[in-house]
Amino acid sequence: MFESTVTFLDWLGIVVFSLTGALVASRKQMDVVGFVLLGTVTGIGGGTLRDLLLDLHPVLWIEQPLYVVVCALVSTIAFFTAHLVHSRYQLILWLDAAGLALFAATGAERAIGVGAGPVVAVIMGMITACFGGIIRDTLSQERSIIFSYEIYVTAALAAAITLVCANALGIDRQVGVSAAFGVGFALRGGAIMFGWSLPRYRSRQGRAHENAVC
Amino acid sequence: MFESTVTFLDWLGIVVFSLTGALVASRKQMDVVGFVLLGTVTGIGGGTLRDLLLDLHPVLWIEQPLYVVVCALVSTIAFFTAHLVHSRYQLILWLDAAGLALFAATGAERAIGVGAGPVVAVIMGMITACFGGIIRDTLSQERSIIFSYEIYVTAALAAAITLVCANALGIDRQVGVSAAFGVGFALRGGAIMFGWSLPRYRSRQGRAHENAVC
Amino acid sequence: MFESTVTFLDWLGIVVFSLTGALVASRKQMDVVGFVLLGTVTGIGGGTLRDLLLDLHPVLWIEQPLYVVVCALVSTIAFFTAHLVHSRYQLILWLDAAGLALFAATGAERAIGVGAGPVVAVIMGMITACFGGIIRDTLSQERSIIFSYEIYVTAALAAAITLVCANALGIDRQVGVSAAFGVGFALRGGAIMFGWSLPRYRSRQGRAHENAVC
Repeated sequence: MFESTVTFLDWLGIVVFSLTGALVASRKQMDVVGFVLLGTVTGIGGGTLRDLLLDLHPVLWIEQPLYVVVCALVSTIAFFTAHLVHSRYQLILWLDAAGLALFAATGAERAIGVGAGPVVAVIMGMITACFGGIIRDTLSQERSIIFSYEIYVTAALAAAITLVCANALGIDRQVGVSAAFGVGFALRGGAIMFGWSLPRYRSRQGRAHENAVC
Repeated sequence: MFESTVTFLDWLGIVVFSLTGALVASRKQMDVVGFVLLGTVTGIGGGTLRDLLLDLHPVLWIEQPLYVVVCALVSTIAFFTAHLVHSRYQLILWLDAAGLALFAATGAERAIGVGAGPVVAVIMGMITACFGGIIRDTLSQERSIIFSYEIYVTAALAAAITLVCANALGIDRQVGVSAAFGVGFALRGGAIMFGWSLPRYRSRQGRAHENAVC
Repeated sequence: MFESTVTFLDWLGIVVFSLTGALVASRKQMDVVGFVLLGTVTGIGGGTLRDLLLDLHPVLWIEQPLYVVVCALVSTIAFFTAHLVHSRYQLILWLDAAGLALFAATGAERAIGVGAGPVVAVIMGMITACFGGIIRDTLSQERSIIFSYEIYVTAALAAAITLVCANALGIDRQVGVSAAFGVGFALRGGAIMFGWSLPRYRSRQGRAHENAVC
């Protein structure tokens, strides 16, 4: 039951990330091939970079091409229905938060599974969760999520760190993944609902701490 | 005869892609090292990404450094003669179309050759043909070809799909590569000559289909 | 003594490159996670790309996660003290020059060590030295160093070529690395102090050679 929930969320994450890629494509008024390109890169980009860095071959979508097919399908549907997608922007933000939290947890877990230490596992969780979006923004020359005022990469990091800690403490996998997901989703959800953010660097006064929101 | 034609076109593709990189460098008024950097990345970027993803080592230009030498040479010549290159812009567009169609076909074929399925092979054809240009545009912060109004990525996809279908139908390699090249070149050529494009997403009215040209 | 000097400079290079990433993050008014992300990518990006291309696994920071820890630490300190960092901009330029020259030399040497030929070794030196900065500029959507008016990539290339030549001539490793470092550092230093640059391509007149400074 837990396994099938994780698998379900895994596919959900891919679908949602593809949708965010398609949304950017719609903003750029691209054609259907552009939607598919950007949607697919966003959906599988993070996992691909993780697999390349960890030397895990075949990379996820070469082993399981259905991932690409689903990304392409979702992006194509989005091309014909993007007005619906836009009106559901709030929903997509939340699904994206779920995908972010889950990919950070499962990405870190996959790294641990192939023998990576805690530091590398945390990074791999962050890469899996965030680099699809980072590649999307770079390719489409949009303002990158790494500049996002609200918490984003931080939520992925927190989820990955939670997973790694739970694993180090010998906590049951089911509990660990759930806790990591919960931490990441709560942080990102707070950012969506309440505008949570970390204090930013201010150049003039050197008073970086006054503007903290969370 | 066919083999040597393909080999000739392969080198021609590398040369032409390098030239497009050098042209961007000239627009940015870079120095000769900038020309070489951008020309080389454009010439071998797509094939390099394909080899990394398929775990084919050594990657093409590490196995055959002559590729890099030729890219560097072409870019250097372009630095000293770019006014000629500019006045031959139309010719370069057509050579680029030939390189695009050929790389899509041979990229897909190389993927099939190492056991990739049809979906992965199509993607590898597209990556080989397009990602040199995509990396060029990203590094040089130019408007990316993925936003190109006219058919570009689509032509590469069509060529790769043709190659994969021909292979699946057991059609002779020579015929398959030629057909794939023909499809890709015809589509891209139509885009150059007649401005062929796919309908683009329009945000306001949700009437994405009216503006179809092809 | 020579070994420990190289190791010291190697760590110094990572620290300095991280600092340049953190400086860009401060210009973009990012939060501390943004500092760490950009600082770390800059510090280890070039070496990571080299290892991926050469199929050297585990890549440097997966084998030695301390690299990442140091990058993250340096970036975090920079977040809280960036006003100091800014006032030391001149110092950082010079440390960056040292890191550039050293990474070009050691990157080329690492490639030779795994059997790469001279062309590939030169490219790997350049990639190790420059691609951290190139990835930093691409991710942060800053004007890329590849457009830098003053000599930058050229200095890395010169250092890598010197190393490869010294190696081919059978010159002692200690002398070769020192010479390569010296050449790269002198060229980049000249660019910092005297504005050395290569002639750039001028579109109108086709007179690319008149504006040579060096």
